[in-house]
Amino acid sequence: MAKEKKLVEAITSMDEDFAQWYTDVVKKAELVDYSSVRGCMILRPNGYALWENIQKELDKRFKDTGVENVYMPMFIPESLLQKEKDHVEGFAPEVAWVTHGGLEPLQERLCVRPTSETLFCDLYSNIIQSYRDLPKLYNQWCSVVRWEKTSRPFLRSVEFLWQEGHTAHATAEDAEERTIQMLNVYADFCEQILAIPMIKGKKTDKEKFAGAMATYTIEALMHDGKALQSGTSHNFGDGFAKAFDIQYTDKENKLQYVHQTSWGLSTRIIGAIIMVHGDDSGLVLPPRIAPIQVMVIPIAQHKEGVLEKAAELKDKLGAFRVKVDDTDKSPGWKFSEQEMRGIPIRIEIGPKDMEANQAVIVRRDTREKVVVSLDDLEKEVEQILNTMQNDMLERARVHRDTHTSVAADYEAFKEVIATKPGFVKAMWCGDKECEDKIKEETGATSRCMPFEQEEITETCVCCGKKAKSMVYWGKAY
Amino acid sequence: MAKEKKLVEAITSMDEDFAQWYTDVVKKAELVDYSSVRGCMILRPNGYALWENIQKELDKRFKDTGVENVYMPMFIPESLLQKEKDHVEGFAPEVAWVTHGGLEPLQERLCVRPTSETLFCDLYSNIIQSYRDLPKLYNQWCSVVRWEKTSRPFLRSVEFLWQEGHTAHATAEDAEERTIQMLNVYADFCEQILAIPMIKGKKTDKEKFAGAMATYTIEALMHDGKALQSGTSHNFGDGFAKAFDIQYTDKENKLQYVHQTSWGLSTRIIGAIIMVHGDDSGLVLPPRIAPIQVMVIPIAQHKEGVLEKAAELKDKLGAFRVKVDDTDKSPGWKFSEQEMRGIPIRIEIGPKDMEANQAVIVRRDTREKVVVSLDDLEKEVEQILNTMQNDMLERARVHRDTHTSVAADYEAFKEVIATKPGFVKAMWCGDKECEDKIKEETGATSRCMPFEQEEITETCVCCGKKAKSMVYWGKAY
Repeated sequence: MAKEKKLVEAITSMDEDFAQWYTDVVKKAELVDYSSVRGCMILRPNGYALWENIQKELDKRFKDTGVENVYMPMFIPESLLQKEKDHVEGFAPEVAWVTHGGLEPLQERLCVRPTSETLFCDLYSNIIQSYRDLPKLYNQWCSVVRWEKTSRPFLRSVEFLWQEGHTAHATAEDAEERTIQMLNVYADFCEQILAIPMIKGKKTDKEKFAGAMATYTIEALMHDGKALQSGTSHNFGDGFAKAFDIQYTDKENKLQYVHQTSWGLSTRIIGAIIMVHGDDSGLVLPPRIAPIQVMVIPIAQHKEGVLEKAAELKDKLGAFRVKVDDTDKSPGWKFSEQEMRGIPIRIEIGPKDMEANQAVIVRRDTREKVVVSLDDLEKEVEQILNTMQNDMLERARVHRDTHTSVAADYEAFKEVIATKPGFVKAMWCGDKECEDKIKEETGATSRCMPFEQEEITETCVCCGKKAKSMVYWGKAY
Repeated sequence: MAKEKKLVEAITSMDEDFAQWYTDVVKKAELVDYSSVRGCMILRPNGYALWENIQKELDKRFKDTGVENVYMPMFIPESLLQKEKDHVEGFAPEVAWVTHGGLEPLQERLCVRPTSETLFCDLYSNIIQSYRDLPKLYNQWCSVVRWEKTSRPFLRSVEFLWQEGHTAHATAEDAEERTIQMLNVYADFCEQILAIPMIKGKKTDKEKFAGAMATYTIEALMHDGKALQSGTSHNFGDGFAKAFDIQYTDKENKLQYVHQTSWGLSTRIIGAIIMVHGDDSGLVLPPRIAPIQVMVIPIAQHKEGVLEKAAELKDKLGAFRVKVDDTDKSPGWKFSEQEMRGIPIRIEIGPKDMEANQAVIVRRDTREKVVVSLDDLEKEVEQILNTMQNDMLERARVHRDTHTSVAADYEAFKEVIATKPGFVKAMWCGDKECEDKIKEETGATSRCMPFEQEEITETCVCCGKKAKSMVYWGKAY
């Protein structure tokens, strides 16, 4: 019993210390482990299985829009990285440099890719000749490296896994359409599968990607009221095409530059799943992304027929991702582990249940307990998983909406940022000076100019000049 | 027409220059492209789709044996790489070194993983405490880097994709069993899915993996009679466990070292698919691994209803991986492309076929043409794909067997190696001196000591001393 207590006690409560709670959960749910390499994390089976499911869902959605997967080298020669001015300025300070291969120094040093625009541009300049070659809709799943000083599992690390899509189009319209299309793919995926509602919008110039003409983003609100940028989609216009000379012959036989996009989503999103849905017992996984949806836990498993019955229930639930915990731990210990890992449903089955042809189903999020007839088990499990998925999205939406404030003037803005965690909607004149001032004085940054605009006032919340746009502001990860 | 000829003419014939034929095929079938990074290749959609199918098939087989996927950092600190003596000696001369992160030099340089034994050992030493924690059956899909001086697409490159499984077991028997089990998984996959028959066996000490107690291998014979090592599985015994202090408490509460294995298969196997099955028209893909199994090519597609009919056939064949080539190229050009890409079946459908409620099916490997009623299309396609898969394996087996010789003495051995491409079976005394001599004098290396042993003579083919084992010898990629 002492050991069992330890597992539960070891988690800091969310309200007491949210950062510590987060660290406890990723460690205790065995999502990650720290490695001997500074700033790099190890994705353990429970963590990687989440990423595999994310990959499967997103990859299908990408391919449905015509995207094809490729794999590019992990190294970028320094001269190639330098071809697009804004891009190199944005990334050069945080890349890792390879200077020796085998026993010899390299003639030109190579950086480990922080992102692969330059490599895709180099390829496109070789393989795009005619309008017939367009569009090119390539994506890759890989890891990238950014030499960050601090690190937190999933949220910030020297190496992380992601996908990066890179497309080339004949016209500016096609590129803009693809940029928005992929942002919508991300947002729909997050809502439908991860039960995380997203604010879709455009980044300000200050916050956009190095080398992009426009960056679009999806922003989510965590349990502690901080925002998390969860995926971005960039329209490069023809800036990279000009730097890399990517031209095609159009139908009138004229040379034209292509228009490009890129879009990425990373393991960071796992941080969002944890911080949107988790509670003081650990992870709570949305059923549609959970690697294991149902854990069958035998009660008094030494009694005759119990383990066999548990195995029978697993087979009966073949339509779902089910496991039986038949280890020699106590049921209470198994409950704690199942809760810590966020497995959506547990089914308790013991000798008394068997006699009554029933089982106990416990929902992870609400801890609601129902006793169901074994004849109805499949139907009940399906219904509970669906209800739980919908309820989780709805709860996240309510949390976000009740943590979204409106500020009409700067005093109100400062007050609300200081006292109430969450998003603040306020008007903005479009000047970087006001963004800088707000960040410096309140710690809040512009998260995005949402597609769904409202006119709160006519003037900028900071300087009082004519407002150009409503902006979501907030403290962010 | 001039342009169409070009595609076909551009391929060197296999018999004329096999190496050039290979290079032509990987380029023309758009499997890879060369990159601006020396020795690194780009996997284009046709090449990466093959790898995706390989991953899907293997990953399922791994998981069926209880394996779980993880992701480890791509960097290894120099001090960690040096912990196991043989291992570091084997790999240090060919690794890439990261010496700077951002704008600062690193305190300790990091190598980009050439393989990840050291990282897995480091993790296992942290997470394995009791016999309850065993076995650990982890695998990762990733890229690795080995600073090779020469490169050939798929066969040898600075960076390549692979999977590496790393397991830890309570006993030596469990480790040996797992080593053989995974070798069998590889061999079965290659035979059943890639239609490539494998020789399974053990490597000699000279050829085994750096740090391994025993290395097992699957060896295939290419069209030109050279051997290709296609997958390896290593038993480490407790060597790494002692170097990394990976101990567990057994049921009697005694401390024991774990026993470990690792096993890997890489994009190299795509080179085998090309070189075992390809012909002078390009790739020939086994149906079970082909990203596209059927290409529907409309004839006179400007005529009313032809494109609609082609689309209808695609829908009808929903159980297979089907595409319609509705580009504005000529049918002849489309045929050449489909053949170059190795798509197993093409279906030709034109106005006359439509009138007769029929279509023409052409098999890629034999070029056999059959006219089938549209009512039987599904059944026919299924049957042809199955027959083709079986025929390809059988042809590869016959080719290998007719290119496998037996040598009873050294004169015969030298003669056959010099004149007849292929494997040579001959006896060996077990001494490295003989292996070295054979390699130096004939260019052949020991491929493996096959599980299926025969006693050709009683004495070593090289030195005449008592033989210990029959060995497959051959020139290799």
